[in-house]
Formats: sequence, C-alpha cells, structure tokens
Amino acid sequence: MALVVQKYGGTSVGSVERIEIVAQHIKETKDKGNNVVAIVSAMAGETDRLIKLAKELSNNPSEREMDLLLSSGERVSSSLVAIKINELGQKAMAMTGRQCGMVTDEVHTKARIKSIDADKIMNYVNDGYVVIIAGFQGISEKTGDVTTLGRGGSDTTAVAVAAALNADVCEIYTDVDGIYTADPRIVKNARKLDRISYSEMMELASLGAKVLQIRSVEFGMKYNVPIMVLSSFTFNKGTLVTKEDENMEKILVSGIAQDKNQARLKINSVKDEPGIASKIFNTIASNNINVDVIVQNVSDDGRTTDISFTVPRDDAEKAYELLRNLAKNIDAGDVTLNKDVAKVSIVGVGMRSHPGVAAKMFDSLANEGINIRAISTSEIKVSCLIDEKYTELAVRTLHDSFNLGNE
Amino acid sequence: MALVVQKYGGTSVGSVERIEIVAQHIKETKDKGNNVVAIVSAMAGETDRLIKLAKELSNNPSEREMDLLLSSGERVSSSLVAIKINELGQKAMAMTGRQCGMVTDEVHTKARIKSIDADKIMNYVNDGYVVIIAGFQGISEKTGDVTTLGRGGSDTTAVAVAAALNADVCEIYTDVDGIYTADPRIVKNARKLDRISYSEMMELASLGAKVLQIRSVEFGMKYNVPIMVLSSFTFNKGTLVTKEDENMEKILVSGIAQDKNQARLKINSVKDEPGIASKIFNTIASNNINVDVIVQNVSDDGRTTDISFTVPRDDAEKAYELLRNLAKNIDAGDVTLNKDVAKVSIVGVGMRSHPGVAAKMFDSLANEGINIRAISTSEIKVSCLIDEKYTELAVRTLHDSFNLGNE
Repeated sequence: MALVVQKYGGTSVGSVERIEIVAQHIKETKDKGNNVVAIVSAMAGETDRLIKLAKELSNNPSEREMDLLLSSGERVSSSLVAIKINELGQKAMAMTGRQCGMVTDEVHTKARIKSIDADKIMNYVNDGYVVIIAGFQGISEKTGDVTTLGRGGSDTTAVAVAAALNADVCEIYTDVDGIYTADPRIVKNARKLDRISYSEMMELASLGAKVLQIRSVEFGMKYNVPIMVLSSFTFNKGTLVTKEDENMEKILVSGIAQDKNQARLKINSVKDEPGIASKIFNTIASNNINVDVIVQNVSDDGRTTDISFTVPRDDAEKAYELLRNLAKNIDAGDVTLNKDVAKVSIVGVGMRSHPGVAAKMFDSLANEGINIRAISTSEIKVSCLIDEKYTELAVRTLHDSFNLGNE
Repeated sequence: MALVVQKYGGTSVGSVERIEIVAQHIKETKDKGNNVVAIVSAMAGETDRLIKLAKELSNNPSEREMDLLLSSGERVSSSLVAIKINELGQKAMAMTGRQCGMVTDEVHTKARIKSIDADKIMNYVNDGYVVIIAGFQGISEKTGDVTTLGRGGSDTTAVAVAAALNADVCEIYTDVDGIYTADPRIVKNARKLDRISYSEMMELASLGAKVLQIRSVEFGMKYNVPIMVLSSFTFNKGTLVTKEDENMEKILVSGIAQDKNQARLKINSVKDEPGIASKIFNTIASNNINVDVIVQNVSDDGRTTDISFTVPRDDAEKAYELLRNLAKNIDAGDVTLNKDVAKVSIVGVGMRSHPGVAAKMFDSLANEGINIRAISTSEIKVSCLIDEKYTELAVRTLHDSFNLGNE
C-alpha cells in the first residue's frame, strides 16, 4: 500500500465546486488502495482578502498577528475538504499545523519548519482516515505562537510532510499541468517536461517560475522526495521533479525562464579600494533587499570603477535612496536607476559537461539585435539582463535555438 | 488598577470601521489606568458564511470539522483588533482559545469550558499588553481538537475569563444598550434597567431574550462576576447583571419576554396508566428535542387523558412524526400540531415573596380577550401560551399592568 501525499493550491479549492472535485479525487486515490495525506492552501482570494483587511487597519501590521490572521484561511479550506470527503463516505480528519506537530522557528511570516509529528498523522492514517492538513502554518518552538511559512508555503508543508512520513510521492496539484520548457503564454510550442531535476527546478523557481515554492524543492532534494507537479483541473500526468540521472545530463537546456520583476542600479566612479564593494552590498543587505546580477567595470585609469546590480523592482526606490546617501559618504559619482530591464535565463544540468552553451545563448540574442546589459551564471544556468521590451522575443528565440519545442 | 474584561459581539466588530472604533475604545479603557482583556466574536455574517459553505458540501457536516471551520472567524477578528490597537500605539496581543489554555470537554459544537490558563493571560497583561482573545472556542481536554461553545459562546468565554482572572467587571458590548423591561420594538415606553439579578437574567435569556447566552449568566452567578451589558455604538451606561439585593425584591416584575419560536403538540385519549407520560417524553427527549410547557387534562371518565406540550418550532414536524408513530403503539387517539402559538412571560425575583402576581397576569390577558392555552411557572417567572397573533398586544398589556414603563 503506497502512501501518497497530495497538495492542492488555492485555485484547486477555490469554490464549493472545486472542493467537491478535489474531495472526489482524494477519495478515488484512497479507493485505489493508497493511503492519502492531503495538504490544502486557502481558497483562492482568501489570503488577499485578509491582507487587505489588515492593511486597511495598519500600514505596518504586527507580524505575529498577521500570521494568526492568515492561518485561518487554510483552517477553513481543510475543514471543508474533510467535510466533503466524510460526506462521500470516506473517513477524513482535518488537522491544523499545530495538531500535526508542525513546529517552526520564531520568524513570523516566513518561518522554517523544524519538526513534524509523523506518528500523530500516521495514527490516523493507520486507522483508515484520510488526513487533510492546513498548509502554510505551524507553531513556533519557544512561544507556541502561530507562524506561517510565507507565500507558497503550502508547497513546503506538503514536501516536508512527505519527507517526514517517508511517502512514496508528493503530488502538487495546481492550475497548470506541469513544468514547461518555457511559459506557454509566450512560447506557443512550449513542451511539458516529463522529468526535471531538483537543482534545475530550484533554478527555475528562483528565476521567476512560480509553480513551486523554492524551499519546497530544497526540502525535496534534501530528503529525496519525488515531487509530481500536475493539474487538479485535468488530472493529466504532470512533471516529476526528481534526482538527476544520466539521461538528464544529455540535455543541454531543460527550460527557459523570464523575470520582469527586476530593476538595475548603477553607482558610478567608485574608488577602486578594498572594502568599498562590501560597504555597498552590506548597506543593501541590511535592509533586507536581495541583490542579484552584479557587474563591476574597472575604469580606464584603473582608479575608479562602476558597480551595477539588480534588485526586485518593488525594492528599487528604497535601494536607490540608500545608494544615493551612501555615494556621498564614499565620495562616489552619481547613481542611476533603470526599471525597464528583465532577466532571461536558460537552465540545464547538461551545461555542466557541455561547454559553449552560454556562447550559443549570447549569439542567439545578438542575432535578434538584443543587447545584453549584464550576465550571471551558475553551474547549471546562464542569466542575461536585457531591456524589458525584448523579453518575449528573447524567450522565443532561445526556445528555438536550443530546440526545446514540440515538433 | 482595575482589571476590565470586555466582550465585543459580531456587529461590534462587523467592519473595518467598527474594528477601529472598538480598538480605540479598548485603548481608552487602558489609558484610563485599567488593565484590559477583550474577547471578540467573529465579524458579523462570517459564521453564517462558513456554515453556508459547509452545508453546500454536506447535509450533515462532521461536527469536529465544523468546529475547526467556525473557530477561524474569531481568529480573524481577534488578529484584526490587535493589529489596530498596535497601530494606535498600545501593545496588544491576540490569543486563540488554545493559546489562553481554554480547555473544554469533548462535545463538539457545544463544548463546556473546564479550565483557563489565567497565568498565561496575566503574564501578558502584567507586561503591559492588552490581550485580545478569540471567543467561542477552546481545545478539548483529551484529544486537543478545536471545540466551540455554541452560538453566543463568546459571551461565555468572556465571563469565564473574567471569573478566571478575578476581574472587576465583565463588560458585554453589543448592538443594544442594555436589558429592557420589554422588547423596545414592541413596547414604545420600555425602560432600560440599571440592574437585574443573575436569576432574572437567566429566565429572560431562556425565554427568548437574545442579549446574553444563558450559560454565560450561569457562569456569572456561580463565580459572582458583575456583568455589564452595554452598546458599542453609543457606549452609554448599560445594565448591570449582578447578585440579588433587597431593592430588587421589592420589584414584582422586572421584565417581560416573548417567544414566537413555539409549537404546541397534543396527543388525545392517552390511557391514564403509570409510565405512559414517561414513554412520550422519553421519545421526544431521545431525539434531542426540548420540551417546554406541559399540560395534562384528565378526561371526564378518568380513564384517558390528553397531554399537550410545546417544542421549538424548528423541531415541530419531527416531534409530530415521532408522536404519531408512538400514538399507534400505545393505542392513543389522534395527534394535533399547532404552530400558531407564542409564549409571553413575566420575570421578577419579587414574585417569590408577593403572591397574586400570576393572578394579575391572567386577569390582564383576560381583559384583552386573550385566551391562555397553557401555563408554566417557576419561582420567579410565569409563562402563558397564547395564540401567536396576540403576542404584541399581550406584551404591551402586561407592561402597562405592572407599571414597567418610563413615565
């Protein structure tokens, strides 16, 4: 008897009709002879509704109370799904984060899971219950307060539960039917992948593909949980996120991602002295702004440099202010901000063993007259910063160049 | 420094604007030098919305999951109120039933409180926090599941917390500004009472006055908690529910209540044998139907009797079916059901020591040509069952007869 962990996202349980479909599917999975533990997100729109209420009351709502507030959404959906499964004649039990011993650290709004009470969940499973767990939430280790895992946190709940229960598979049901070689809204012949490695999936998730929360993939890789991404609207076979194998390495590029949530800052005429870059990036980091693609140009005279980097667009104004103040203190030149940039990336474990992939990317973009403003690379990805208006053209061009499409 | 427990009902926190008013009032109470613990209900309409969702999924939703579902409403309102108070510059802490150690028995949807962790609440209070507690909910002693205390349960949460903390007063904020001698919608010159005894309040609550949950008054009486009922819309002085004193006993009738949620069943020609009445009422009781006013008439020949009684109108059809089946088994006559009845009652601790109050009631009704179909009495109340269409006339007549109105 297999143990299947399933996770249903907000659109999958977004209405009474959707909950009925999900309840039926859970029952069918159980009827086929599997044990089932399902994790649910809040009904679509509910989290936003609650955030709106809080924002109307306070510009800066206390994080402890925000966690308590937002955790209610998953309590509602988990109760409703369990009620429907019971109605269908299958014993079901809804459990909150607290009830399944989901203990986290104390960091409200983006807590990390420390442990799960697998025995408590399995006791119900072994009694014949389907267990429906409220995703996204836990309780903090020291104070016992309600914590949440951040946007998309139910993915992480699901993979962590699958790891704790040593489940055979963690199925993530969402509103797309798998991982594609590129965004199908941009590339008509984008192809659904049968399999993708954890590390590729992590790169894609961090590059702007919103299908899985990145931390859930980290968990999956760490505990070797097979993650199947599939649609609760079609129930077709999806994409398996799994550990790397030889076949994957033969493929140079698995997918292409684009991210328009980028802004580029440049600080000119910085003295080329030790410690200056550290000052700049510490200033940014200490304000909780993530820095991405960094480029440093040494000037002709060798005495000053220009440093540029990207930040999430929402943080751009704040970073700009910080940098302008800093520039005065360190006697640097002017600071410029450009929000009309985007990042396109190619990802593939195959590029580790195949040189020339990056060069091919640059060529393809150049052939279309697309200027590359900055580059960043890892072992398995190459990202190029370009003008935002070329984003779709760049994605389609790269998809063609690396022959990723369906025939 | 006084310790004030406040409770805000659903309409009091029914919108962002209402929450702002409530938060402001809590802060002002604190600013005046009091410690404050507030209990909140779900935002008006929220509990009904959740029940509707569940009923769409199941005719008979599992009670354990219903409790988990419904408890989310108070988590939302308590978080929002705490967020607003923090925004106003006063430290506030939202706590769920579980977090303040609200342990109940295992009876889902109508659990009873067994204990409260007063120390945990007082630790925050002594640290300068206003504590905002999600009403209506607890966790069960044995399984740690979420339980709820039934409709109006936040009243009971409030009085129980006030008792556990040995508070100076428990203020129940609602959408009316106190307890009246009669329903002001029916009686124009109904008068707001300054004080009323616990036992009178319990009678009124059980007779259909919906201002306080009856169990909260029981708690108040048992632990001698002064309960002030007042309006969160006017913040005027309300009615104090307190222990009986000499002055109260001088007043014959404190208030008049009416209840249209009544139906009368009559079973004719029942053999006048021992055990027959027991059979009838056990049949009704074992189906969880509450029986109220009971009348038994012995027939002229002394061999059969007619038995009639009232039940809540919602249960009338079910009780009628049960009774018709039973009538065949015990060889009784036909069964009749009358839904066009209502109960009017006079309540007052003074009637214990003043005979003739009931007679005056019957006279007053008779003078208006209102037939009394059944009577039930306790030490401090007299109830008459009448035709529903005379309800308002009866209430006004009694209010006049006992001189309850304003000048």
